[in-house]
Amino acid sequence: MTDFAATKALFHLPPGVIYLDGNSLGPLPLSAPARMAQVMTDEWGEMLITGWNRGGSDGAGWMAQPTLLGDRVGRLIGAEPSHVVLGDTLSIKVYQALAAALEMTERKVVLSDNGNFPSDLYMAEGLVRSLRQGHELRIVAPEEVEASLTPEIGVLMITEVDYRTGRMHDMVRLTERAHSLGILTIWDLAHSAGAVPVDLARARADFAVGCTYKYLNGGPGAPAFIYVAPRHANRVRPALSGWLGHESPFAFDIDYRPGAGIERMRVGTPPVLALAALEASLDIWDMTTMAEVRARSQELTGRFIAGVEAACPTLTLASPRDPDLRGSQVSFRHAQGYAIMQALIARGVIGDFRAPDILRFGFTPLYIDQGDVDGAVAVLAEVMDGALWDRDEYRTRSRVT
Amino acid sequence: MTDFAATKALFHLPPGVIYLDGNSLGPLPLSAPARMAQVMTDEWGEMLITGWNRGGSDGAGWMAQPTLLGDRVGRLIGAEPSHVVLGDTLSIKVYQALAAALEMTERKVVLSDNGNFPSDLYMAEGLVRSLRQGHELRIVAPEEVEASLTPEIGVLMITEVDYRTGRMHDMVRLTERAHSLGILTIWDLAHSAGAVPVDLARARADFAVGCTYKYLNGGPGAPAFIYVAPRHANRVRPALSGWLGHESPFAFDIDYRPGAGIERMRVGTPPVLALAALEASLDIWDMTTMAEVRARSQELTGRFIAGVEAACPTLTLASPRDPDLRGSQVSFRHAQGYAIMQALIARGVIGDFRAPDILRFGFTPLYIDQGDVDGAVAVLAEVMDGALWDRDEYRTRSRVT
Repeated sequence: MTDFAATKALFHLPPGVIYLDGNSLGPLPLSAPARMAQVMTDEWGEMLITGWNRGGSDGAGWMAQPTLLGDRVGRLIGAEPSHVVLGDTLSIKVYQALAAALEMTERKVVLSDNGNFPSDLYMAEGLVRSLRQGHELRIVAPEEVEASLTPEIGVLMITEVDYRTGRMHDMVRLTERAHSLGILTIWDLAHSAGAVPVDLARARADFAVGCTYKYLNGGPGAPAFIYVAPRHANRVRPALSGWLGHESPFAFDIDYRPGAGIERMRVGTPPVLALAALEASLDIWDMTTMAEVRARSQELTGRFIAGVEAACPTLTLASPRDPDLRGSQVSFRHAQGYAIMQALIARGVIGDFRAPDILRFGFTPLYIDQGDVDGAVAVLAEVMDGALWDRDEYRTRSRVT
Repeated sequence: MTDFAATKALFHLPPGVIYLDGNSLGPLPLSAPARMAQVMTDEWGEMLITGWNRGGSDGAGWMAQPTLLGDRVGRLIGAEPSHVVLGDTLSIKVYQALAAALEMTERKVVLSDNGNFPSDLYMAEGLVRSLRQGHELRIVAPEEVEASLTPEIGVLMITEVDYRTGRMHDMVRLTERAHSLGILTIWDLAHSAGAVPVDLARARADFAVGCTYKYLNGGPGAPAFIYVAPRHANRVRPALSGWLGHESPFAFDIDYRPGAGIERMRVGTPPVLALAALEASLDIWDMTTMAEVRARSQELTGRFIAGVEAACPTLTLASPRDPDLRGSQVSFRHAQGYAIMQALIARGVIGDFRAPDILRFGFTPLYIDQGDVDGAVAVLAEVMDGALWDRDEYRTRSRVT
């Protein structure tokens, strides 16, 4: 049994704050600054260039960290060992997966949905346009995805958990349906990894990508990850064929030869410092299982929905009511959503706003408990009852919301 | 006048070590751990998600750091203000620049040379292959580049300073010649930025890319940079069209619209922690000018060549003898180069080896002085005189050399 009070004590949460935005940026693990200081001072400072062979977790070398830590992320998403690697940003990993998938099929249509994170669609748009090979990016509504799987589709590229509402696609069923029609699948796990149980191996997903700065608490700009199914890993031909994906990077050959399996999805020099911060969070993740996290998450999101619906009748639930159909977040709609969120933040309840009218709250069992849920409901009720959001100062948009 | 003794005192250099590998990984600025701790504890820890607007240098927000710090790098490479942005890895930035350049020309040939860093060639190879539009990557010897500039070439993509020998291309002359034939230029400044004066604006370079973990001391895996000439910056159409290059990232529109100027070359979420480490080094760079660094570098490399040639007759200079034709490194050839370098490292003189026979030594005036040069020559002479490299323990290759 996971002791969630113990995991909560391992994060820094500012006094007076109820942080319901760990689905956007996870908080600081208390051990992260010391781990970072160690890597900077003892490894970078003392080992210098030899850190590539001697530094990092277990002294396995900085060069080994992207796959070593990749396996620890892999456990949380049901990946086979040695099939996840960390690096780059999620947008780059989306591009990498889609470019690889398009090389595996003669079909020209990429299917996605308008609940996908926009950057995924932008990257696909940029790739398709650059290729000039007659590809089409077809974007349907999330509920139309299954019916839109037809034999002309080459690749299904979607995000499992909708970033706005928390609505979940059924990964097992859609992947099975896609495969029955000869369609490859790319799953974006940005709002799944550390949020809901994912079993990539069982679902037989072809590719998966995700980020580590949300539920995985890797810090602002933490590296992304990519998974390639074992049956494809030695066959995919990377478009982003960087030297660290080369079979023998330090031979400095002129010609590219892809490395073994997931190694070929590495591109450039690994982000050693960022990986050190992530490692501190993965130590906490090692204390639990996704099944326990999911049970606790459903308890928290259910409690929040019940509390808000009882206290704030003008807010409309935007997330699925069935806990099995939503991720680890709860969203409500209100025409004054932006101002309401600013009023909440001013009172220490931090969620976020997504245009045009979504108030979004993330529930992260590693450090959010029932007391936090009840506290957030009380503050939200106070803001709504007194129309406390109805002030000019809350209506001015900041650059980043 | 730069006080190089003062800048040297701002780096951590392990006792007993003469570090001549700052051209591969720069050493730790002493202020970097504190700056990192501040960003982790005071910004990530306390500001949480609001750090995107409030964190970072000058409180300008984490989101602003890639261009704010980009300008500080830009000063060192002669870029116009607001035309450099940090992010991703150098391999990704090469791909991004080349993809953009290929969209600007109908010509199909990319010219490069076999002195280019292999990852640049690999990335070009991967892009050209993915496009399937009949492009050709033509690789000639470095000395054949100028004569190989013909009207069928669309893009010249080369590294200014050869990573093995320090041989320099003439950026001004080659760019002028290329432009006279309607050829776009992409300059890789990996071994130029912080090593030699670069004046991108005067040379009228079209694109430039580079990394910040070598001479710029940003730490292992520090982010890369990209420059786009002002005359192109609002015209290029990014292939890697990520959300942070979007005109309005937080509108979450379905369609991509490129941001203004260099902003469109951003891709995913910026690497906030890595940028904090880089900032500590840029504070030191603010204490000097590239003209002074170059003068001192030429003095150091000249002194090293003279010393080694006098003391070690079996080593053959691989770098240009004319100081104006070499970067800030000196390379010698020897058939037993690998074992010799291991023997040097065992005695505290750290350089590196590049296959098949190159001993490479970087000279970095911010923290390397004449005493270091003389000390390194003495140790090298001792190793060569006594054939101290001739031991089994120095012949076993490690994974990363």
